[in-house]
Amino acid sequence: MASEYINDIGMRAKAASKIVRNLSTDVKNECLKACAQALMDASDEIITANKKDLEPAKANGMSEALLDRLSINEKRIRGMAEGILTVASLKDPVGEVISMENRPNGLMIGKKRVPLGVIAIIYESRPNVTSDAFALAFKAGNAVILRGGSDAIESIKAISDVIRKTLTAHDVDADACVIVDKTDRTYVNELLTLNKYIDVIIPRGGAGLINMVVENATVPVIQTGVGNCHIYVDKAADLDLALDIIENAKTQRLGVCNACESLVVHSEVYEKFLPMLYERLMVKDGVEIRADERAREIVPEFVPASDEDYYKEYLDKIISLKIVDHCPEAIEWINAHSTGHSEAIISKNYNHAMRFLNEVDSAAVYVNASTRFTDGGEFGMGAEIGISTQKLHARGPLGLQELTTIKYIIFGSGQIRK
Amino acid sequence: MASEYINDIGMRAKAASKIVRNLSTDVKNECLKACAQALMDASDEIITANKKDLEPAKANGMSEALLDRLSINEKRIRGMAEGILTVASLKDPVGEVISMENRPNGLMIGKKRVPLGVIAIIYESRPNVTSDAFALAFKAGNAVILRGGSDAIESIKAISDVIRKTLTAHDVDADACVIVDKTDRTYVNELLTLNKYIDVIIPRGGAGLINMVVENATVPVIQTGVGNCHIYVDKAADLDLALDIIENAKTQRLGVCNACESLVVHSEVYEKFLPMLYERLMVKDGVEIRADERAREIVPEFVPASDEDYYKEYLDKIISLKIVDHCPEAIEWINAHSTGHSEAIISKNYNHAMRFLNEVDSAAVYVNASTRFTDGGEFGMGAEIGISTQKLHARGPLGLQELTTIKYIIFGSGQIRK
Repeated sequence: MASEYINDIGMRAKAASKIVRNLSTDVKNECLKACAQALMDASDEIITANKKDLEPAKANGMSEALLDRLSINEKRIRGMAEGILTVASLKDPVGEVISMENRPNGLMIGKKRVPLGVIAIIYESRPNVTSDAFALAFKAGNAVILRGGSDAIESIKAISDVIRKTLTAHDVDADACVIVDKTDRTYVNELLTLNKYIDVIIPRGGAGLINMVVENATVPVIQTGVGNCHIYVDKAADLDLALDIIENAKTQRLGVCNACESLVVHSEVYEKFLPMLYERLMVKDGVEIRADERAREIVPEFVPASDEDYYKEYLDKIISLKIVDHCPEAIEWINAHSTGHSEAIISKNYNHAMRFLNEVDSAAVYVNASTRFTDGGEFGMGAEIGISTQKLHARGPLGLQELTTIKYIIFGSGQIRK
Repeated sequence: MASEYINDIGMRAKAASKIVRNLSTDVKNECLKACAQALMDASDEIITANKKDLEPAKANGMSEALLDRLSINEKRIRGMAEGILTVASLKDPVGEVISMENRPNGLMIGKKRVPLGVIAIIYESRPNVTSDAFALAFKAGNAVILRGGSDAIESIKAISDVIRKTLTAHDVDADACVIVDKTDRTYVNELLTLNKYIDVIIPRGGAGLINMVVENATVPVIQTGVGNCHIYVDKAADLDLALDIIENAKTQRLGVCNACESLVVHSEVYEKFLPMLYERLMVKDGVEIRADERAREIVPEFVPASDEDYYKEYLDKIISLKIVDHCPEAIEWINAHSTGHSEAIISKNYNHAMRFLNEVDSAAVYVNASTRFTDGGEFGMGAEIGISTQKLHARGPLGLQELTTIKYIIFGSGQIRK
């Protein structure tokens, strides 16, 4: 029974979370370092397991890009190990007392950072998420329940086995890292409603997965990932700088959520700028530009954009383009079409830049820089588990601190309420 | 059509939220002060409207307690006005830059406090929630959609009319305060899934309402309110102090979420303590004590407790009681039965107190003080919209700061990612 299986997993993870939340930073770091070493030592087993995922995937005609995402080699295992070591090196957020105040009645009220408890992470076919997610959640004092894509199940099992054995060897409950090794969808649905044991669910993947989780979960969710990121080229833009930033944000890495997917260009510069853009992005970089009618009057080579184009996260060599007549129109357009991830204005005008920063309602808003910087590492968090595009709890990169909550600790001496 | 009606309300609130989030603190405070005055000036109309709610309620046999909760008089209107003025006097959380860091590549990355956007509040028959909730949400730069109990609909309409007229008179979009004036349940269901326009839903009321919202909402929810609060009398407790605190936490106000509903008593002191407790709570205060067998051997007047008793929020002159043999057992018992609201230990033992503070997994954990202090005012926040019992976003009293989110603002000079 799916419900019994998932209930058991939840109960075990909850029990483990009570142990993990009280581990000292030293013990957590030792476990993490040992996990990194153990993964390196188990390279052969992990690669063998990975082959069991790759063979049916190839036989079923999985695309080259997805096969690449699924496959594990020595270098990728080293990458996983390094990721874990990075997390071990980060400052432990648990136990920090953010504030401590004396009230007039003598109560001393403190606000203390504590682990969330049990975090369920639902992801797709990238097996390395297994070790990344475990490491971050564990360092922040949580137990994790991991449910990866069925395509990657053998790889995920192999990686989690190594982690679980290492935890046991360090006298830590192995259920701090539990995986759902059933690939049937009913198991996910049980997970999404296990409020009794799970404190938060983080989906990592495409829009389809995220929507499925948001629609069906009763456990609180942190939405991550989908980025229809905009760059607005203002009338006061340095056009060469705009071109460099757009090229970087669109082409430096295509399949990431902070890549630029849509351009907004001011009508006072578009006659000059669009031919430059055409040369750089379309001719040089091979990016298809889907534009509105006004833009196509300047560059007929642009492809006509449909309404849906403006809502799309392409993750491909395609970008949409819209001409606007003033900065407020650009802001309104972006707020109506973006997914609330990252947006940038390119401008030398102070008022436009400040207005854009204030009024664009996204997790990260840039002046004169590439949207590609929205990333835990680039923001100085060291590592992240995803980018939150919702407003509740955490917005932007989810680092260690975002995997904690707070609790009030109150020191009294017999106070009663009057 | 419910979906069209709710969609229209959402769209209007969203549009208003874009105006409210950019209002200066001065303008917001002027509006709030004017609302307070306008409510006082409209006392007659509001009381007349309230009668239209009270008459059918009486005819339908509503209990005295509920009728009292529903009724509005001059004094209560003054209370609402004072509540609004308190909010006007609080520090505006919007715009605070929490951190600003220079990255090695020259990017200056700031974390800024910004409004959530549109907050929907679903409540029961307490009409004053209308003005309280509006004032807090508005001061934090948000628009609100209010959906109160159908019993209170005429009162809610009258109060919101006054607020909306005042906003209009101050050139602020009246849709910063929209009410759902349809009492059919289908309208609530539409509201719970209006992710397009609503950023967060806060249910205020009993367990039934909260569970209904959690189970059906796809919009992120902040759970509030249900408090099965525990007080643990340790073997090292000052028993007189324990008695005073328990009496206060149980009887000072019965119908509140931070009242104590369950006692846990150490077996080394129960023989001495239970007779004291019986005298004070049962004989003097008329509180029914539902206890386990061991306790009833000492005081046969205690009523036998069922398993369900230990999960109950009575909000009445009833309390449950459990005997344990050591501090870890008390902690485990509390974590298994509490709703994660507020719990207290009464002890002179340093190690027990620290362990209780660390291991009890609730929003507020006390040493030697009454659980009744878990309150925005008592915590120094000035006012609150409820007590969060979930771990995501906000835990404990929800003050102005908890009605905001953050956004990253990034100042660049042409940075691209390498």
